[in-house]
Amino acid sequence: MHPFARRQRDSIAAVGEQRLIAAIRRWLGETSPRAPFGIGDDCAVLAAPRGRELITVDPVIRGRHFDDSLRPEDIGAKLLKRNLSDIAAMGGRPRAAVLSVMLDSRVRIRWLERFYRGLAATARRHGVKLVGGDLAESPGALAASLTLLGSATGERVLTRSGARAGDRIYVTGELGNSRASGHHHAFTPRLSEGAWLAGRKEVRSMMDVSDGLAKDLGSLTPRGSVADLEVASLPLRSGASVRSALSEGEDYELVFTLSARADRAAFESAWRRRFPRIRLTCIGSFRRAGKVRARDPFTASLHGYEHFR
Amino acid sequence: MHPFARRQRDSIAAVGEQRLIAAIRRWLGETSPRAPFGIGDDCAVLAAPRGRELITVDPVIRGRHFDDSLRPEDIGAKLLKRNLSDIAAMGGRPRAAVLSVMLDSRVRIRWLERFYRGLAATARRHGVKLVGGDLAESPGALAASLTLLGSATGERVLTRSGARAGDRIYVTGELGNSRASGHHHAFTPRLSEGAWLAGRKEVRSMMDVSDGLAKDLGSLTPRGSVADLEVASLPLRSGASVRSALSEGEDYELVFTLSARADRAAFESAWRRRFPRIRLTCIGSFRRAGKVRARDPFTASLHGYEHFR
Repeated sequence: MHPFARRQRDSIAAVGEQRLIAAIRRWLGETSPRAPFGIGDDCAVLAAPRGRELITVDPVIRGRHFDDSLRPEDIGAKLLKRNLSDIAAMGGRPRAAVLSVMLDSRVRIRWLERFYRGLAATARRHGVKLVGGDLAESPGALAASLTLLGSATGERVLTRSGARAGDRIYVTGELGNSRASGHHHAFTPRLSEGAWLAGRKEVRSMMDVSDGLAKDLGSLTPRGSVADLEVASLPLRSGASVRSALSEGEDYELVFTLSARADRAAFESAWRRRFPRIRLTCIGSFRRAGKVRARDPFTASLHGYEHFR
Repeated sequence: MHPFARRQRDSIAAVGEQRLIAAIRRWLGETSPRAPFGIGDDCAVLAAPRGRELITVDPVIRGRHFDDSLRPEDIGAKLLKRNLSDIAAMGGRPRAAVLSVMLDSRVRIRWLERFYRGLAATARRHGVKLVGGDLAESPGALAASLTLLGSATGERVLTRSGARAGDRIYVTGELGNSRASGHHHAFTPRLSEGAWLAGRKEVRSMMDVSDGLAKDLGSLTPRGSVADLEVASLPLRSGASVRSALSEGEDYELVFTLSARADRAAFESAWRRRFPRIRLTCIGSFRRAGKVRARDPFTASLHGYEHFR
């Protein structure tokens, strides 16, 4: 759907700020609590979380994270899910979000309604409250940035550091061909999986795959080690090449590391019992540097994402 | 300072994402904690606040909240202070912020450095940690949206509702002529004042004046009442007209209401002891509707900000 209206009366310019905010609250429905616990006061008031708090921010920008072929509902959903994937990557539970929208006054009211309804449907599914926001006019723009608050589900928050040489590398789901397949917006954030993994002591570090495995793995790789990937074992999405699986990005899967001392078979079987329908693949391990096998072009290449562009 | 570079080597396009993020962390200095407590993991991890939590989001957009005559440092400072003023308006204390920046790749590195350094200086002054962010390219754009977390300073969070007919209306500092005087970016958010007011039981409601008193007062006015302003008592900033004091906006002062039963003299004298250098003015009171004095044009006008445009 093209976001800009031809007729002024179909655009947000025809409505005015106060009526637009009232409409947004209607579109958000029960995901938008009453002030001061939601939109309508200077700040939103929240109860303190029980455990440690998590915070992340990610935008969607027209021309960069979506184009006009995408349904506005899917853009709203994608905006929240990108952030949910970050909460999942630390084993957290999402709580509340605030939204900053920058848009041209020619944007169709109907486009905006569908965007907010898509966002609200996803928020409802994951128990997220939309507690605040800002709407600012910006000529030519159509962008939204969402800040998501979450909290730890247990004692432990899984971070990117913690892996050691010898640890195994695992990835959930499948990788590659994200854009053409529609996975980049239709994915399900791995919240249950992330929380379960954070509760397993043999899992040492975790992140989500958003910029492509080749680049993202660098953040998990311990100093003095290299990631030794078994390229043939990469779980390819239908239509995906190895190159796309390594570098296209927007997979929103979890990549995590399992202690070298862990019982792999027991861990994998526990996973299968808990998540029988979610594929889990061991794709390699970390190895002390200085023993790079020249035959495998991907091992050495993993240090630089730019090589794949 | 014009934000776009003439020579490519002076622009952020010449640097690349990884080096730019490293530079930003250097510019932010000690206001940027190490991951996972700051930039560098999927989320930032925070300790839970002690009391209730506050959250607000506000942007600065080139052409709307700043132009090229403003120093980049002042733009960064303004972005944080706009949000600090919202925390102040509920009597809270600021805690941590995340930042979403959208910018053209032609933006000067030097412009961005000065913007972040101005933001960091203000964050340092108010004990705010910059714990996360996102940097996205967006052709032609130069905008940043900041989400600020805070917490209640005491038992009570002051909201916009709570005033009753008969209650007095007070405003801190001075109003009007905000743009020409530079107040719109040089103001000091009223954090100490807001926290003190939230601890006074005779104060019933509060907000900050950001859209102009005439519009903002509508949010404090109890149902069935009108705001009866003593126009002659409005504390005008140097060079300000009554019209500008009522409708220009960007005053970032606190407007609050005092119970009709409170001892006005005792309250005002307590204020003067605590804040001897900050002007406090009673500008009117709320009165049951149906007794509007036709002689006073502003009383009736207070219902609609658009009239002043």
